[in-house]
Amino acid sequence: MTRFALTVEYDGRPFMGWQRQDHGPSVQQALEEAAHAVTGERVAVHAAGRTDAGVHALEMRAHMDVEKPIAAFRLMEALNARVRPHPVAVLACEEVPDDWHARFSCTGRAYEYRIVNRRAPLSWEAGLAWRVPQMLDADAMAAAARVLVGRHDFTTFRSVHCQGGSPVRTLDRLDVVREGERIAVHAAARSFLHHQVRSMVGCLALVGLGRWSVDDVRDALEARDRARLGLNAPPDGLWFVGATY
Amino acid sequence: MTRFALTVEYDGRPFMGWQRQDHGPSVQQALEEAAHAVTGERVAVHAAGRTDAGVHALEMRAHMDVEKPIAAFRLMEALNARVRPHPVAVLACEEVPDDWHARFSCTGRAYEYRIVNRRAPLSWEAGLAWRVPQMLDADAMAAAARVLVGRHDFTTFRSVHCQGGSPVRTLDRLDVVREGERIAVHAAARSFLHHQVRSMVGCLALVGLGRWSVDDVRDALEARDRARLGLNAPPDGLWFVGATY
Repeated sequence: MTRFALTVEYDGRPFMGWQRQDHGPSVQQALEEAAHAVTGERVAVHAAGRTDAGVHALEMRAHMDVEKPIAAFRLMEALNARVRPHPVAVLACEEVPDDWHARFSCTGRAYEYRIVNRRAPLSWEAGLAWRVPQMLDADAMAAAARVLVGRHDFTTFRSVHCQGGSPVRTLDRLDVVREGERIAVHAAARSFLHHQVRSMVGCLALVGLGRWSVDDVRDALEARDRARLGLNAPPDGLWFVGATY
Repeated sequence: MTRFALTVEYDGRPFMGWQRQDHGPSVQQALEEAAHAVTGERVAVHAAGRTDAGVHALEMRAHMDVEKPIAAFRLMEALNARVRPHPVAVLACEEVPDDWHARFSCTGRAYEYRIVNRRAPLSWEAGLAWRVPQMLDADAMAAAARVLVGRHDFTTFRSVHCQGGSPVRTLDRLDVVREGERIAVHAAARSFLHHQVRSMVGCLALVGLGRWSVDDVRDALEARDRARLGLNAPPDGLWFVGATY
């Protein structure tokens, strides 16, 4: 048996999310079926992060175990050939020790949330970003983001369906950067709660719109109450951009 | 009658190109039908550049004449509402003098050609860039590009279907910039021949692959013979990025 680490890019639009679902296509199923076609084996693929429906990845990390002898490069090429026509691409593949685990060995996860701040609808980027038609104050959003950085109980910013155990997380980075009509929110942490990035971005957007103050964000955080969440941003703009080990 | 100048973004994938066609959807038709729905008038929309099937635009300029009194901002909003579900977005709309013409007043056009240079297929970017799996030498491509800059007879780089009159054009800019796996070719001129950017990029790619030298590009240019074209790059990677007046 050889364990392979994969770096995977995918377009989340047609998927119910990373994780296998009974009711629709998933990235995991697409990759597991490709791996089965390549190896003839029942292969399980595990990822660093189980992204939601409609969420994308530029560099998701994953791993799989293969019995059949195969070189990493050939496996990558064969997976890419077999995963078509799903919008999933294996960017890199390497052998790793048997105790390397894409999810449990992961020590850092990074997301980027993309907002397009303009009146006009999206064309080529539909489903790949969140369009906000009203003017957003990115400086105010950046100030509010600083309230959330650090170790906190993020219950307010956590889906009621979250199975992540403790609601306490340490947010290492939450930066807001505007370039023209585009606003990117960069988030990094060892791990995130379910919907945490989208919930944080939703509240930052309220601040950007002038409907919430920085203090409203602090109050919502300190309330530790999901009912105090202002807004959950849509999945469209969320991109898993990297994992560290 | 009021003449309005439009700035239009579109995803070229579902279209037969800018220009109205009998055999399939076009950007022009989508906008003209939206304008008809808004005004009740038979409106003709003229663009700075008539892009081919599968070619995209970030800032196409166009104009249209409207009899009905309407403010520019309301017209923009109404066009965006009516052009759905086509992936076309009117980014800006302003009144211009009656003699302002999107095509004939245009003094400069700029394109960007996007190459993704990697083994893995494209996922979210499928149809929006040209994937070249073999390693490209971007420095060699940049050197070859400099041969093409200036005033030349571009017959070699012109579609046999080109209706542009003289094959002589002045290419003001042809820059090749690599950032990681991405290579962008920036082209600017007063006007381009049909397929000129794609034909130039195709030959630059041959240089990047080591199959052509810089001298081969010079020879092809000087031959003034379409049969000497090395390769026409696919439309996927071509973006109209701006027009100047």
